[in-house]
Amino acid sequence: MPTSMIVLAHPRPGSFSHALAATAAHALRECGHRVCWHDLHDEGFDPVNGPEGLDTTRPQGASAFSAGADPLTARHRRELAAAHTLVVVHPNWWGKPPAIMAGWMDRVLVPGVVYRLDEAAGEPTPLLALRRLVVLNTGDTAPARETEVFGDPLDAIWRRCVGEYLHHAEVRRLLAGPLANSTAEQRRAWLDDAYRLTTR
Amino acid sequence: MPTSMIVLAHPRPGSFSHALAATAAHALRECGHRVCWHDLHDEGFDPVNGPEGLDTTRPQGASAFSAGADPLTARHRRELAAAHTLVVVHPNWWGKPPAIMAGWMDRVLVPGVVYRLDEAAGEPTPLLALRRLVVLNTGDTAPARETEVFGDPLDAIWRRCVGEYLHHAEVRRLLAGPLANSTAEQRRAWLDDAYRLTTR
Repeated sequence: MPTSMIVLAHPRPGSFSHALAATAAHALRECGHRVCWHDLHDEGFDPVNGPEGLDTTRPQGASAFSAGADPLTARHRRELAAAHTLVVVHPNWWGKPPAIMAGWMDRVLVPGVVYRLDEAAGEPTPLLALRRLVVLNTGDTAPARETEVFGDPLDAIWRRCVGEYLHHAEVRRLLAGPLANSTAEQRRAWLDDAYRLTTR
Repeated sequence: MPTSMIVLAHPRPGSFSHALAATAAHALRECGHRVCWHDLHDEGFDPVNGPEGLDTTRPQGASAFSAGADPLTARHRRELAAAHTLVVVHPNWWGKPPAIMAGWMDRVLVPGVVYRLDEAAGEPTPLLALRRLVVLNTGDTAPARETEVFGDPLDAIWRRCVGEYLHHAEVRRLLAGPLANSTAEQRRAWLDDAYRLTTR
């Protein structure tokens, strides 16, 4: 049974981000995946890398799962290493993820988990078995304006900066917005998009 | 006497980010500015927006300085509201700021401080008196590769997403990299760049 992972960052239970994440979880279970569900606020995930967190740029192999990590972070790293699909869900705040998701990236997407640094070769070797990264973002800007006016940095962060280190994974993304004053019909269409992106 | 603000995010005291921030502080003092210095790790800045933090999308006027904020965050907001120059200093982690800086943006750059939302007009009205935003980033990627391969999302985040809400401010940015294996001469040149960007 494939295992997949959902990582959600929105401070308000019942947010539309929660609905997107629940839809993705449902879609994965329909496909026979075991789902590891992580609501970062609910779990009290600690996003701040202390100086000891920087040491994770060194460890390779199994120690990378625990180096500079609390038990929760170590568990996230182990689950990610085994995941078929990773679904990340968060709003667009200033063109970047909220701090708690930024910290998940800083502390879980570390060398020894996501890639191996070979001093000699120079190029990092991707390590994850991930087949698919699904990014579900919400915002109060229309997608066209987000691209034209703001340059849609979230797309570059996930698709290019992270995607470059995911050898086998296809990256898919939904930007649901503007969310404010959206109709029930529009929101249902975004949930359908999330379902489709996660499974097909 | 103009007041300016430096916000620094790097977990290791003595990092090159600390040297860049100290150079910017020196440059501002040479120009007669009073400098408000904030090392976010040193201050123990709490980056996580709880549900109450979302209420800061509502308050306008003076209450925006304290709504959903601990005393330290409220102080940052007040200082920013009065600042001539803001200097932010942080490394490039996955094309975004480290979590503690991401959280500074989420909790300090709020409506009522950075801009006012006029329901009727639609367009936000910039509120800050800021004349200059200086962004000093470090990374282990050469600037050309950061732009071509990764799309340099940090540039879009600060110059476009944040910059769009800074009516009067000129945005200037240094990307110092690759930092690993750089020479002392190269690092001195980056410090010179930081000095120049901050003052001229």
